[in-house]
Amino acid sequence: MFHLLDIIGTMAFAMSGALTAMHKKLDPFGIFIIAFVTAVGGGTLRDVMIGRTPVGWMLDVNYVYFIVIGYVFAIIFRKKFDRLKTSLFFFDTIGLGVFTLIGLEKGINIGLHPVICIALGTMTACFGGVIRDILCTEIPVIFRREIYATICILGGIVFFLLRKLNLDSDILYLTTSLFIISVRLMAVKFKWHLPTLGYK
Amino acid sequence: MFHLLDIIGTMAFAMSGALTAMHKKLDPFGIFIIAFVTAVGGGTLRDVMIGRTPVGWMLDVNYVYFIVIGYVFAIIFRKKFDRLKTSLFFFDTIGLGVFTLIGLEKGINIGLHPVICIALGTMTACFGGVIRDILCTEIPVIFRREIYATICILGGIVFFLLRKLNLDSDILYLTTSLFIISVRLMAVKFKWHLPTLGYK
Amino acid sequence: MFHLLDIIGTMAFAMSGALTAMHKKLDPFGIFIIAFVTAVGGGTLRDVMIGRTPVGWMLDVNYVYFIVIGYVFAIIFRKKFDRLKTSLFFFDTIGLGVFTLIGLEKGINIGLHPVICIALGTMTACFGGVIRDILCTEIPVIFRREIYATICILGGIVFFLLRKLNLDSDILYLTTSLFIISVRLMAVKFKWHLPTLGYK
Repeated sequence: MFHLLDIIGTMAFAMSGALTAMHKKLDPFGIFIIAFVTAVGGGTLRDVMIGRTPVGWMLDVNYVYFIVIGYVFAIIFRKKFDRLKTSLFFFDTIGLGVFTLIGLEKGINIGLHPVICIALGTMTACFGGVIRDILCTEIPVIFRREIYATICILGGIVFFLLRKLNLDSDILYLTTSLFIISVRLMAVKFKWHLPTLGYK
Repeated sequence: MFHLLDIIGTMAFAMSGALTAMHKKLDPFGIFIIAFVTAVGGGTLRDVMIGRTPVGWMLDVNYVYFIVIGYVFAIIFRKKFDRLKTSLFFFDTIGLGVFTLIGLEKGINIGLHPVICIALGTMTACFGGVIRDILCTEIPVIFRREIYATICILGGIVFFLLRKLNLDSDILYLTTSLFIISVRLMAVKFKWHLPTLGYK
Repeated sequence: MFHLLDIIGTMAFAMSGALTAMHKKLDPFGIFIIAFVTAVGGGTLRDVMIGRTPVGWMLDVNYVYFIVIGYVFAIIFRKKFDRLKTSLFFFDTIGLGVFTLIGLEKGINIGLHPVICIALGTMTACFGGVIRDILCTEIPVIFRREIYATICILGGIVFFLLRKLNLDSDILYLTTSLFIISVRLMAVKFKWHLPTLGYK
């Protein structure tokens, strides 16, 4: 189940990367690389920083295949993505929830401080998109608009609070994922966003 | 003492990152990430490249707290930074000296060649700022103006020359830091800079 | 022989980095860093991601010297590079062939799946240029024009097909390099390129 959600998230991230790259008029190779780094960039950065090498996707070639599927799908249906937007957004949100938890878990496994684990969760979920935007020479969208990374941080805090209650691990994971996913849905529905700070 | 300087440098770098990000009108989360990577980016890159993982700041959560303090400070006093500019510049220069030495030391500890150690020192001191500029889609300022990284390289050379004299390690560190700090102060006071090379 | 080609490739990549940086009017330090990352960036990324640390160039200071030579050469002859363009292009193509093979080999050595090895080969050959372009705030050229990375992928596929024939390892390496080099020469001569995908 959890693994299935991981696959859905990976494919959704690959598609969102491919769509950004097509907007920038990249060639098919460039689009593929952007799809790839959007999907695995956050986890790769996390693995490299905690010394979990070779990084995750290198040990399971299936990730490459899922990304290829997402990429091909995005190219074929590129003219229909207005209608598919809602589905893509939903899958992307699943990815956000699942990847945050995967990141948290990796940090806990090697005994890092909760604050650092939350950083790892946020990095896993959000930094694929940061690398995508940098490769397209845009200031990363999550630094400018939308509560996105902030939800991962909140999700991480909820996770560690619930963890003190000695809940069953499955319930703990499920609750945190659902928290992240529903806050994200509400944030977009009600247009929540962080204020920009005036400077001089 | 040395640890105190490390903290001062970390906070100064976090503040300089936050200020750059506020100029770019990022939201509070974006500003925090930029503050964070400016403060720890150079050391993180170094640790990842020498295989010292989990990277430094993950093992000492205090760094996160110091960065949060620098970040909050920068946000609160953002309208007064014209008057605080000199202090910030001074702290930033302390960071430059201290971080160069920390980088040099990590290289020496694992027996790398002096040239590589100097590269590690320069990376530790300067690449947080490089990553900051890239995330803000600017060509890194240290590639364009100001003798900055060059001073770290000179400092590294001075370090290895003095080391041959079998000085006490405290004196060696102190002298090198003071060298870097004073050359930087002079470079800014007398507006030293590297020439740009004409191309065609 | 293979080592000599590695040196030629490293110097050619350093020169191509220096030339890009001079076009951007960077100062001499900035030009050097861009030359450096263009030459070793792909291999560094690969080493970090497979956990081969300290990364390659840190263990053999000669790479630094070869890069310095390429850098000085590019600066001295910067006004004559129109005439030297063909030679530089030829050396760069040698680098492409050699670096792809080095990357493939590192992956095979640690028992990774062929698809992952091909990714490592492509990364080794192409990502120095990607980092160069990002540091100069350009969308990486290999994502936009020219069959470049695609040739590395094809070369990797040829390598694994030939490998099934149980060829002598020297012949296998030579054939694959020559394949990559000649396809690249033809691609440029006959102006082969990937189509851009229209998006709406």
